Amino acid sequence: MAALGNSGTTSNLAPKTKTKKKHFVQQKVKVFRASDPVLSVFMWGVNHSINDLSQVPVPVMLLPDDFKANTKVKVNNHLFNKENLPGHFKFKEYCPQVFRNLRERFGIEDLDYQVSLTRSPPVRSFDDPGEGLLLNSYDRTLVIKQISSEDVADMHNILSEYHQHIVKCHGSTLLPQFLGMYRMSVDSEETYLLVMRNMFSHRLVVHRKYDLKGSLVDREASDKEREKELPTFKDMDFRNNMQKVYVTEEQKEKFMEKLNKDVEFLVKLKIMDYSLLLGIHDIGRAEREEEEGGEVSNEEEPETENGLTVGATVGSYGTSPEGIAGYMSTCKPLGPGEFDPYVDVYAVRSCPGAPQREVYFMGLIDVLTQYDTKKKAAHAAKTVKHGAGAEISTVHPEQYAKRFRDFIFNIFA
Amino acid sequence: MAALGNSGTTSNLAPKTKTKKKHFVQQKVKVFRASDPVLSVFMWGVNHSINDLSQVPVPVMLLPDDFKANTKVKVNNHLFNKENLPGHFKFKEYCPQVFRNLRERFGIEDLDYQVSLTRSPPVRSFDDPGEGLLLNSYDRTLVIKQISSEDVADMHNILSEYHQHIVKCHGSTLLPQFLGMYRMSVDSEETYLLVMRNMFSHRLVVHRKYDLKGSLVDREASDKEREKELPTFKDMDFRNNMQKVYVTEEQKEKFMEKLNKDVEFLVKLKIMDYSLLLGIHDIGRAEREEEEGGEVSNEEEPETENGLTVGATVGSYGTSPEGIAGYMSTCKPLGPGEFDPYVDVYAVRSCPGAPQREVYFMGLIDVLTQYDTKKKAAHAAKTVKHGAGAEISTVHPEQYAKRFRDFIFNIFA
Repeated sequence: MAALGNSGTTSNLAPKTKTKKKHFVQQKVKVFRASDPVLSVFMWGVNHSINDLSQVPVPVMLLPDDFKANTKVKVNNHLFNKENLPGHFKFKEYCPQVFRNLRERFGIEDLDYQVSLTRSPPVRSFDDPGEGLLLNSYDRTLVIKQISSEDVADMHNILSEYHQHIVKCHGSTLLPQFLGMYRMSVDSEETYLLVMRNMFSHRLVVHRKYDLKGSLVDREASDKEREKELPTFKDMDFRNNMQKVYVTEEQKEKFMEKLNKDVEFLVKLKIMDYSLLLGIHDIGRAEREEEEGGEVSNEEEPETENGLTVGATVGSYGTSPEGIAGYMSTCKPLGPGEFDPYVDVYAVRSCPGAPQREVYFMGLIDVLTQYDTKKKAAHAAKTVKHGAGAEISTVHPEQYAKRFRDFIFNIFA
Repeated sequence: MAALGNSGTTSNLAPKTKTKKKHFVQQKVKVFRASDPVLSVFMWGVNHSINDLSQVPVPVMLLPDDFKANTKVKVNNHLFNKENLPGHFKFKEYCPQVFRNLRERFGIEDLDYQVSLTRSPPVRSFDDPGEGLLLNSYDRTLVIKQISSEDVADMHNILSEYHQHIVKCHGSTLLPQFLGMYRMSVDSEETYLLVMRNMFSHRLVVHRKYDLKGSLVDREASDKEREKELPTFKDMDFRNNMQKVYVTEEQKEKFMEKLNKDVEFLVKLKIMDYSLLLGIHDIGRAEREEEEGGEVSNEEEPETENGLTVGATVGSYGTSPEGIAGYMSTCKPLGPGEFDPYVDVYAVRSCPGAPQREVYFMGLIDVLTQYDTKKKAAHAAKTVKHGAGAEISTVHPEQYAKRFRDFIFNIFA
């Protein structure tokens, strides 16, 4: 109604003779605008959560209540910021103290975590299976996976044991690094997102990819899968391709030691059906591709697909904090096939004398579902199919673990 | 339920040979713990609000909607941070873009505003009238005043005109500098707080104080008032004390020019019953008190009264941002009676040759209520007392303004 003045004019409060001390932190406006409102809320929420956590003291030790805790924020914006966020939304964070502690144990600082998730919108992952979102943080150091409410319950079931395991192994594990779990409510629809460290590199392209379970039955990539740019091959393909992992004896031992501890943990929790995810970066191929012009890596304009930015390049780093990959700018530039072991924690380089110069990324995935749950579901399904009382032939976690370990032991040359 | 490990142990993720770049911003845990849960929520809310605003672009110009906007946040903490904040609370900010713009026009950076209000809990003001809270920010640069829901409505009524006035006068005004308005809901009780710049100094003690309206009728401090440490004297006391304000002719002219513009604005909005708040710092007395040992200013342990810290000394400044008074640490130390005109904007020093070396703090207070509202209330009251149709003798805004200006013109020597 009334005239309102131009907010662009700076205040002219008398002539300024003294210069006020400059702030170290340059206040940049980062706007949580993703084409998907759920993602905007996710970015808003993570930012809010880390800001809030920085005000909350770290407990001397985690208590049972921390594993049941959550914090919910409901926002109602009236005529405010509606260009960037829905007017009404909710954001819930699960077990904030536990995940903060896990991040610390995995060597990820909260400010970097915040920057990696919120400076630019997450981008669609090439691995996107189609069911539910699978995103990478814009700097590709983190994976953001859409999960079900059942997965959230499963996570609560294993979280205390998982935390215990991470404490024991000092954060050195092949298990997924669970870093945060959140629920976004937009338009009465709930989305659950789990944040993990990216098992692949934020920098080195993965050229071939396997999902290995230790069984050959029905473990072959479909024709449809093979048509993809980066198909997920399986155990049978691994054998047929005569694929091998070439590392030193010492690296293999170290790997198997970690694997044995992790699998032991999974058996204890009656978890099965997990896989080893193996990504292979071919150094020679990367070098050739770079020489050939590097159109891919120089692509400045990220394409948009289904409203999500695909394959954005790693952003330029401004002032600190710089996100999880922020090391890179401060250290010497990395040559072909080189990686920073503090960022790419799942990476192993092929040994001297290997037939291929490669970098392997190896970690365990799909570790959420416990046998009990699976068994119940299987039982229900079989009961429907075969009638109550039919024997359930589902393999047990111990059997699964043994077969899995034996198979993985043999992937090495 | 299970044992949980000690979160104090840092993660031992392989030997660290590379040192990660240090963050500029040292992450300090500031805990929003005030003995009063409403204050804790206030501190949480201001912190949240400024963090959020830093993500929201500054509009090219303010629009009518911005004067009706608000943002509400409802928090439910389950088993989380319950030592520092209520488990359930709500925080509402009124017209966030408008107040942000006003802060900018008054030369107050949002990060400083945030620090001044949240680094330590606000402290009880000596001026506390008893009705509703009156607080100072811990660094004493800001005043936090509890207001009624009617005051909130009044503020909305004048905000657009007020903003317009501030634009015109380039932030140079004797009116209160309104910087933020919030609602806290704790245990279903709502508290409204208005943040303004402190008209007195965050550094120089006020030794005498007057509330001047331009009338002598019933304008004398009561005996009870006189017993206070810093009584609020009135027009009659000013005359009886032979009090005068000793400034140069130029300063007087500058002051009266501002006053005339401000009063004109108040008349236009039909506002009356405002006062000139006059605080007097006696430089000689301050020097003597300092020589005598300065027990008051060296008092390290602030006393606690009614659960609120009273008269805390200005906190030590760490890394930036440093709050609104943050200049002080970076500039040369100020001698007795000296002040920084960018912090103490209402201050005027006595002229050379004045009988007293003094610093005057002068600003307009109680400018929220419009004549219409007052008239209605008065009318209702009179109707009860004298019956409907009785003549209302309440003075009009123009008359009030004239009497006020004439009186103020004469306070100068």
